[in-house]
Amino acid sequence: MQRKASTGSCSVTARALQVLEAFAPDRPVLRLAEISRHAGLPLTTAHRLVKELADWGALEREPGGGYRIGLRLWEIASLAPRGLGLREAAMPHLSDLGHITRENVQLAVREELSVVYVERLAGRDAVRVLTRVGGRFDLAPTGLVLLAHAGQDVQEQVLSRPLVRHTEKTLCAPAEVRRALAEVRRTGVAVSDRQVTMDAVSVAAAVYGPENTVVAAVSVVAHADAVNPHALAPLVQVAARGISRALGARLRSSVA
Amino acid sequence: MQRKASTGSCSVTARALQVLEAFAPDRPVLRLAEISRHAGLPLTTAHRLVKELADWGALEREPGGGYRIGLRLWEIASLAPRGLGLREAAMPHLSDLGHITRENVQLAVREELSVVYVERLAGRDAVRVLTRVGGRFDLAPTGLVLLAHAGQDVQEQVLSRPLVRHTEKTLCAPAEVRRALAEVRRTGVAVSDRQVTMDAVSVAAAVYGPENTVVAAVSVVAHADAVNPHALAPLVQVAARGISRALGARLRSSVA
Repeated sequence: MQRKASTGSCSVTARALQVLEAFAPDRPVLRLAEISRHAGLPLTTAHRLVKELADWGALEREPGGGYRIGLRLWEIASLAPRGLGLREAAMPHLSDLGHITRENVQLAVREELSVVYVERLAGRDAVRVLTRVGGRFDLAPTGLVLLAHAGQDVQEQVLSRPLVRHTEKTLCAPAEVRRALAEVRRTGVAVSDRQVTMDAVSVAAAVYGPENTVVAAVSVVAHADAVNPHALAPLVQVAARGISRALGARLRSSVA
Repeated sequence: MQRKASTGSCSVTARALQVLEAFAPDRPVLRLAEISRHAGLPLTTAHRLVKELADWGALEREPGGGYRIGLRLWEIASLAPRGLGLREAAMPHLSDLGHITRENVQLAVREELSVVYVERLAGRDAVRVLTRVGGRFDLAPTGLVLLAHAGQDVQEQVLSRPLVRHTEKTLCAPAEVRRALAEVRRTGVAVSDRQVTMDAVSVAAAVYGPENTVVAAVSVVAHADAVNPHALAPLVQVAARGISRALGARLRSSVA
């Protein structure tokens, strides 16, 4: 999991949060010494903080002696409006989209310069995707819809850094990405053809919130050989509009 | 949301967690003064803690000036093996169960003396249910499968307290609940007939983990008038077995 830049803060709260940040998708269970090491905290400090977090239920002890993120933290975190709240509103539409396309369906939001997936439904026999609920990825090429509708400052920050080349089709030149973003704004759809893996194509559309700003993106990821992205686009757009309505967006009636 | 008993601790970590606990399903967005009041902390303390939590992303500022639980906390919490990890393994089976029954499908775990729902798929035209992902309910009558397979101490604690009567059908006498729990262990299924609302019946079965202990329960909640719970039971059991297998449980081959 990508880390925020350290704020240099040494408050107890910051240290407790550092303990939580020691956990990651590839290390969901950690022993005390590992927490101390990953959090960059002395063993005695880590020990005290782990005990306090475990007493409250933010961490749970495994039968083998390690620690894992606790259900109590998950309960509180489920109140995040941009996490489960969004997901609940979107779920019927995502489910419909998955059943009609039989492909992978994803729902994502932007967090600073990253895409965070808040839902993912795996299609039957669908192409393998790298995303994970709660996982973070780069805005380019994974979150073109979110990037296209982000502020100019966000776009400039993303384009001023070197873009990772995943495949020979990945758009890496800033001018190419800028053209792709303009196309997304014009058509309302982002088609990403084999930019992440050579076997997959994704089609994404923007989800609007009650203030009629883009709050999320819904996408379908399918086998590049098997589908015509332009046939998928209207389905993804219908789902995106359905979710937007459920969130209270006021959509233009001309295309309603 | 039901609170844990206060541990009497006054550590900074505990206070930061109190700030997070101020948020609840019926108050997902709070202003600073409200956080201070619900957390039982002086305004200056709440202000400092809120700032530290917001700097890290555990809280987010709303456009209107209130605070909400942040996506960053949700990301970390998504690593809880009993939350999203369980849910990911269960999802294809829950989805199948929902499509075949067209009713509400739920997945829940036990947290001390409560049931916590980790997934809920709403059926088309299905009966209204009171549960919410991340929500907490009493083990009786909502979590009979989990209670039936909990330790004797948990059962005694639940039965030693007054049980809430939701409807005229709610089992409230300890002897009645004990008989129901024995029936759950004998049949492998919990049928709860109009015990929570007079229009709903639920059928639940146990999900086993890699240590062959009960780690969750899967249930279908349907209109009491429209379904025969005994017809639903095998479907729920098949889904429960599918999830158990996905979690690495070794199921008896005699009924495999």
